[in-house]
Amino acid sequence: MSVKVVIIGGGSSYTPEIIEGFIQRYDSFPVSNITLVDIEEGNDKLETVGALAQRMIAKASVPIKLEWTLDRREALIGADFVTAQIRVGGLSAREKDERIPLSHGVIGQETNGPGGIFKAFRTIPVLMDICEDIHDICPSAWLINFTNPAGIVTEALLKNSKHDKVIGVCNIPFNMKNSVAEMMNCYPNEVQIEFLGMNHFVFGKRVFIKGVDKTQEVLEKLMKKEIDFSPANIVSLGWSAEFIQSLQMLPNPYHQYYFQTDEVLEKDLKAFRENGTRAEVVRKVEKELFIQYQDEALNEKPKELEKRGGAYYSDAACSLMVSIYNNSLDIQTVNTFNKGAIPDLPVDSVIEVNAVITKEGPMPLAVGSIPLSVKGMIQQMKALEELVIRAALTGDYFEAYQAMVMNPLVPNEKTAKILLDELLEAHKQFLPQFN
Amino acid sequence: MSVKVVIIGGGSSYTPEIIEGFIQRYDSFPVSNITLVDIEEGNDKLETVGALAQRMIAKASVPIKLEWTLDRREALIGADFVTAQIRVGGLSAREKDERIPLSHGVIGQETNGPGGIFKAFRTIPVLMDICEDIHDICPSAWLINFTNPAGIVTEALLKNSKHDKVIGVCNIPFNMKNSVAEMMNCYPNEVQIEFLGMNHFVFGKRVFIKGVDKTQEVLEKLMKKEIDFSPANIVSLGWSAEFIQSLQMLPNPYHQYYFQTDEVLEKDLKAFRENGTRAEVVRKVEKELFIQYQDEALNEKPKELEKRGGAYYSDAACSLMVSIYNNSLDIQTVNTFNKGAIPDLPVDSVIEVNAVITKEGPMPLAVGSIPLSVKGMIQQMKALEELVIRAALTGDYFEAYQAMVMNPLVPNEKTAKILLDELLEAHKQFLPQFN
Amino acid sequence: MSVKVVIIGGGSSYTPEIIEGFIQRYDSFPVSNITLVDIEEGNDKLETVGALAQRMIAKASVPIKLEWTLDRREALIGADFVTAQIRVGGLSAREKDERIPLSHGVIGQETNGPGGIFKAFRTIPVLMDICEDIHDICPSAWLINFTNPAGIVTEALLKNSKHDKVIGVCNIPFNMKNSVAEMMNCYPNEVQIEFLGMNHFVFGKRVFIKGVDKTQEVLEKLMKKEIDFSPANIVSLGWSAEFIQSLQMLPNPYHQYYFQTDEVLEKDLKAFRENGTRAEVVRKVEKELFIQYQDEALNEKPKELEKRGGAYYSDAACSLMVSIYNNSLDIQTVNTFNKGAIPDLPVDSVIEVNAVITKEGPMPLAVGSIPLSVKGMIQQMKALEELVIRAALTGDYFEAYQAMVMNPLVPNEKTAKILLDELLEAHKQFLPQFN
Amino acid sequence: MSVKVVIIGGGSSYTPEIIEGFIQRYDSFPVSNITLVDIEEGNDKLETVGALAQRMIAKASVPIKLEWTLDRREALIGADFVTAQIRVGGLSAREKDERIPLSHGVIGQETNGPGGIFKAFRTIPVLMDICEDIHDICPSAWLINFTNPAGIVTEALLKNSKHDKVIGVCNIPFNMKNSVAEMMNCYPNEVQIEFLGMNHFVFGKRVFIKGVDKTQEVLEKLMKKEIDFSPANIVSLGWSAEFIQSLQMLPNPYHQYYFQTDEVLEKDLKAFRENGTRAEVVRKVEKELFIQYQDEALNEKPKELEKRGGAYYSDAACSLMVSIYNNSLDIQTVNTFNKGAIPDLPVDSVIEVNAVITKEGPMPLAVGSIPLSVKGMIQQMKALEELVIRAALTGDYFEAYQAMVMNPLVPNEKTAKILLDELLEAHKQFLPQFN
Repeated sequence: MSVKVVIIGGGSSYTPEIIEGFIQRYDSFPVSNITLVDIEEGNDKLETVGALAQRMIAKASVPIKLEWTLDRREALIGADFVTAQIRVGGLSAREKDERIPLSHGVIGQETNGPGGIFKAFRTIPVLMDICEDIHDICPSAWLINFTNPAGIVTEALLKNSKHDKVIGVCNIPFNMKNSVAEMMNCYPNEVQIEFLGMNHFVFGKRVFIKGVDKTQEVLEKLMKKEIDFSPANIVSLGWSAEFIQSLQMLPNPYHQYYFQTDEVLEKDLKAFRENGTRAEVVRKVEKELFIQYQDEALNEKPKELEKRGGAYYSDAACSLMVSIYNNSLDIQTVNTFNKGAIPDLPVDSVIEVNAVITKEGPMPLAVGSIPLSVKGMIQQMKALEELVIRAALTGDYFEAYQAMVMNPLVPNEKTAKILLDELLEAHKQFLPQFN
Repeated sequence: MSVKVVIIGGGSSYTPEIIEGFIQRYDSFPVSNITLVDIEEGNDKLETVGALAQRMIAKASVPIKLEWTLDRREALIGADFVTAQIRVGGLSAREKDERIPLSHGVIGQETNGPGGIFKAFRTIPVLMDICEDIHDICPSAWLINFTNPAGIVTEALLKNSKHDKVIGVCNIPFNMKNSVAEMMNCYPNEVQIEFLGMNHFVFGKRVFIKGVDKTQEVLEKLMKKEIDFSPANIVSLGWSAEFIQSLQMLPNPYHQYYFQTDEVLEKDLKAFRENGTRAEVVRKVEKELFIQYQDEALNEKPKELEKRGGAYYSDAACSLMVSIYNNSLDIQTVNTFNKGAIPDLPVDSVIEVNAVITKEGPMPLAVGSIPLSVKGMIQQMKALEELVIRAALTGDYFEAYQAMVMNPLVPNEKTAKILLDELLEAHKQFLPQFN
Repeated sequence: MSVKVVIIGGGSSYTPEIIEGFIQRYDSFPVSNITLVDIEEGNDKLETVGALAQRMIAKASVPIKLEWTLDRREALIGADFVTAQIRVGGLSAREKDERIPLSHGVIGQETNGPGGIFKAFRTIPVLMDICEDIHDICPSAWLINFTNPAGIVTEALLKNSKHDKVIGVCNIPFNMKNSVAEMMNCYPNEVQIEFLGMNHFVFGKRVFIKGVDKTQEVLEKLMKKEIDFSPANIVSLGWSAEFIQSLQMLPNPYHQYYFQTDEVLEKDLKAFRENGTRAEVVRKVEKELFIQYQDEALNEKPKELEKRGGAYYSDAACSLMVSIYNNSLDIQTVNTFNKGAIPDLPVDSVIEVNAVITKEGPMPLAVGSIPLSVKGMIQQMKALEELVIRAALTGDYFEAYQAMVMNPLVPNEKTAKILLDELLEAHKQFLPQFN
Repeated sequence: MSVKVVIIGGGSSYTPEIIEGFIQRYDSFPVSNITLVDIEEGNDKLETVGALAQRMIAKASVPIKLEWTLDRREALIGADFVTAQIRVGGLSAREKDERIPLSHGVIGQETNGPGGIFKAFRTIPVLMDICEDIHDICPSAWLINFTNPAGIVTEALLKNSKHDKVIGVCNIPFNMKNSVAEMMNCYPNEVQIEFLGMNHFVFGKRVFIKGVDKTQEVLEKLMKKEIDFSPANIVSLGWSAEFIQSLQMLPNPYHQYYFQTDEVLEKDLKAFRENGTRAEVVRKVEKELFIQYQDEALNEKPKELEKRGGAYYSDAACSLMVSIYNNSLDIQTVNTFNKGAIPDLPVDSVIEVNAVITKEGPMPLAVGSIPLSVKGMIQQMKALEELVIRAALTGDYFEAYQAMVMNPLVPNEKTAKILLDELLEAHKQFLPQFN
């Protein structure tokens, strides 16, 4: 049986990571065809990444047939899995998502902050189109989405597109497990974290090491700041003992934006003044990476890739495909329909949750009622996500305003309007629904 | 049939208003006995207010027998209605609720802000005791609570005390109706507002004039700033057209704290520098009032009383008692058990809601699902209320911290701890449960 | 201001009752135009009833202009209120609804039994068309539906038609109040019953006389069989003391079908053998009534009408229109959207509930959680209603089968199929959606 | 590390099965100690079974230390797992549970029928005591309950006892998987059934063979009656094609009681006339088994045991202990807290559900909303379970009546009272809470 994977956004600098993933897992997941797809503007990168991937496959001597193309519909023919890692508007759009809020003293936060709202506005319509194509051309294919904001995008697709085989993945749960493993001196696969919440707003409710509940031990280490969950792209400030003691759960690095707003903002502003936005930093890193990629001697994933914020994203996606393919029934953390797993959120919400991975998709493990301490905040963020999705689909100005004014990072109604207007103007080209 | 009303906190400067209320409504609500109760520290005020109330009754020639006492349990014997308007720790406690947060650049907000959290901490245990007494001594009496935070306190009592005949009232819905009436050139009793939410976080979902839905017309006037809902004690900044247009509901003045935080803070700080805290302003006003009250020639409620923030509170309480007494089946806005009226909040929450007033208490009118625009925020505030109540009853430091850190007015975890610690210390005397 | 009422099914023998209602209430509800509408097959009856109504109006000397017509769309022009009391397939269809189940030893029960399922199947599509017409021609008109099964039909319309101004009424709550009044020696308007449930499956949760909770007293009388709620068309067997004591609520007469199935069936079978089905009895009664109606000397509602099962239906409808017209804010029992009033049922279900009647429609009073004793049964009946509506709209055989097999009166899966097949065949002509 | 298992009801004829289970799984689950516990009345059986178990262990040459005792508290010292398979009142009580309803033309049904209600009444208090002991003596031990009605009992314990490590198991899901495997020509471990509902009222929502959704294929075979799920103790009538086609799920054999009531009753009555109740049949079988057990040459589980209704119960219990011990993270079907897995049932209900088995207990897989076709019925049965538990704990006559009258197998209120009174009288000795 042949297995075909289509990588949308294949010209991304992260592609070598996913290619490496397929090579390493070839025995359990014998991919026969990989097609990298990108858009016109990304053609040069696509060529570079394609050639590198080709060299990686050749070196590994696995019988994977690789192609790359700008014709998405053509590429989708016969696909079993489609991954999406796109960036509508490119890094310069991300730069605006960050710079414009910062210029008004507000954190941009490209996932669920004001910047993330606009990332969702730009991304959702494009991924809706992609889903439409998949539904037409390869309806039994799974779409593995790791385009941010991954949770919001996945909910938008699962609720509004005809294609219902969509799963969102993120590297945050992956990183949290790795951090716990390091701190507890064990292997990552011996760690289970019961996650509660949504993408980038997920808490670790309980931690098990080899099946034994070690939550208290981990929390104590966290109070002593012996552990740090942050991926490369996020400032890490550490948590006060009181916060952890009262929370009785593991926060994720994105929670800093909401509970340490001033300090994060200060750091962001300082970093901005020194190095420009995170987008600009990334641009520089990417430039350097592509110089390496062009080196025809290079035939493996450069180490530098692992130090980036998005590291392990592809790993998470790869693991998921392997388990679907093999009906492994192992537990992975994915973005999928709630179905009651968190009874305080709508049944048809998308949450980030541990799920048993089967050939027919993820089956979420019920988490139970949200502890009162974070119940309100999680419900608020979920409602915010719904507002973002609604506005992304309708292009209604006042619905977009609602999303902006209800965002906890936006300090007041006046700023909400300023940010909304400036971002709408700045991203005009990529927001046809608002025109 | 005799009707006895007991006024707990009877030495309050607002008492003449409620006395006037009973006098004016004597025909439909023939109160035979009123007993004012206060604590030792309030004895002087109680004597002054008692004497004034006596003169008011004498002037009105109604056969109401008035008494005042420091013995609460004695006073409760035979009571049909008990009102509670207490201020545990007095104005100096309120001053701390406001001053301490302001000193860290945070709005104190004595109802659901950090100051309000401590007002709840001080008040709930005392009102629990009062309920205990009522349940023992006059179990069929209704407790009409207008002690702030009225919604939180009422939920604490209804869920945790044995006495289940408790209703909370607030003047905000009353003021909103009056403002709409003024703007729409009609009588207040021709206005119906469908309220949605909780005390001090209530929205006007629909407005009816003589039964006709005039919501859009009112919203347009609001966008043109032709209307202003604020009572005397709240700064009024007006709302942007975008906010109203996207909200599609009437906000209440307290929403300024959450959506215009910076500007309110600035005004508060300016006012603080000029006149001290609101508490200090109130103290001055009260002092002047009491000088008037001592004038033995005074035999009616001074006009000045109507200009205060708490005006109409007693009016609301009075109207409620009249309708319970007469089984009037009219609609009033009260704080009572949700019972499903807002399906997105717990069934046993207390909400601020239109209710049909019967001899057996209020029956809330179902409001239906919360519009997505404010769903998250209302759910968050409700969860916050629950956190406050839990901590008020247990006296647990970390539960108190949770309430503080989850309060939208508290900018970050560090400030949460600072405010918590300073306020706990400042109010030590009135927080036995935390020691 | 003129008020136009359109009576669909105007040729019904009940029409004189509603005409009398309008005449009696003319002062508070000055109807200017009434148009009776019926279908071709009902033309003779329509002429007879129209002429009688004309004589009634003339005798009363009220300036109501009466017309009758077969042209429904024409009639609807300018309507403010539309009432619907139709019987798709006429009495001979009802006869089949009753006879076919009885022939297999099953109660037909024309509202929520197997017969009622088919009444719904026949009726819902026709009323959907009527709603479509109203929405086109007189979109601000209220449709007052008293076509059975009133609750199911109202839910079907409110959820699926474009017209959202639909209210269902039934005479059962009305009869229950009258019975309580009689037993408690007071006026019906002094009785309030808190209703809980759905049409024909409603319980009286609490009974208030002049505002005082007298539930226990009423239950005791019920246990002593001093009271009987049954309208003329329903056998009355009385309830055992244990049933009432454990229920702690007032059942309605239709509950006999579910809790006294055998005995009701026996009585029904006996009555059937002696007098034919209830439909046949009704046909005889109607025939006699129409002979009276044709008497040109008759100019008022004949007394016999009050003794029928449907008596007070028109009264309920009339009261409702008066209160809507006058924005009376009184409490009436109607079939309307749940909106959370019963939190254990879907928010968008239709329930039978006390509601404040306003110009903009009914606002249900929250009832709170269903007592555990009847929670399961009410939820089951609500799910059954949803199954009936779904099948009525899709015409899907297996969805119809689901409704039949889940009906508590249908003893087993085999009988479900037999009843379904025979009724589908018998009513073929009126069930185009199933062909 | 030593592992101690305590088997309460160790004198049961099923004990050799569970002993065999431990022997077979010794490699992965090295039990060091087994203690069989029974009550005075069961001493003879206990001796016989103990001796046989001893011989089985000896034959297998596994180093398990076996003991048996009448001192429950002594036995519990140091326990890691406790299983409960008790029968309060013995087979003669079960006989009454069956015979008394049958004598009034009602199916007894020893799990969720009227007989099952009384089995719960007798069993729950005894298991509450056992839980109390466990909580005192070996608080970290898991109680694996396979005492019927397993779902109801487990909910009673989890909600009302202090011990929260309780899991209920049943052999029905196990049998259903085996039957599907047989029909689909595959191994049982290649079959996954997504279960939906409660113990003995569970549906198979989807069937996967090696991860592929084969629900339609299985349903078609079921329609052709190529499959039969019934264990030995349940009549099997087969299902009509219409029922299966409309249900779109796999029923379990107990559903016959509700959807084929008449026919089951007829068969039961016939069997009763020929062989007495099922209890009497079982008594005969048991007698024969014990004759075998006493044979000192016997040193393995007799084949006859597999043909009984309770076969595989012990297997299910054993598998569960192995997976808990090893933190296997495999999926088993258990009775545990809902936690949202079925959002239409209370969060704190016990449901029968697929769960990932961990060292810290089962984590249920979210099933999502109940299909409308069975939603009402499942909700009704769940409410019935709650009524049974409430009455079992309070011993209130009217609460017991509620449970009886709401049971779908009880045809009417009169019969409810008769059954209740006769069963209360018959079981008097074992129902101290009702006296």
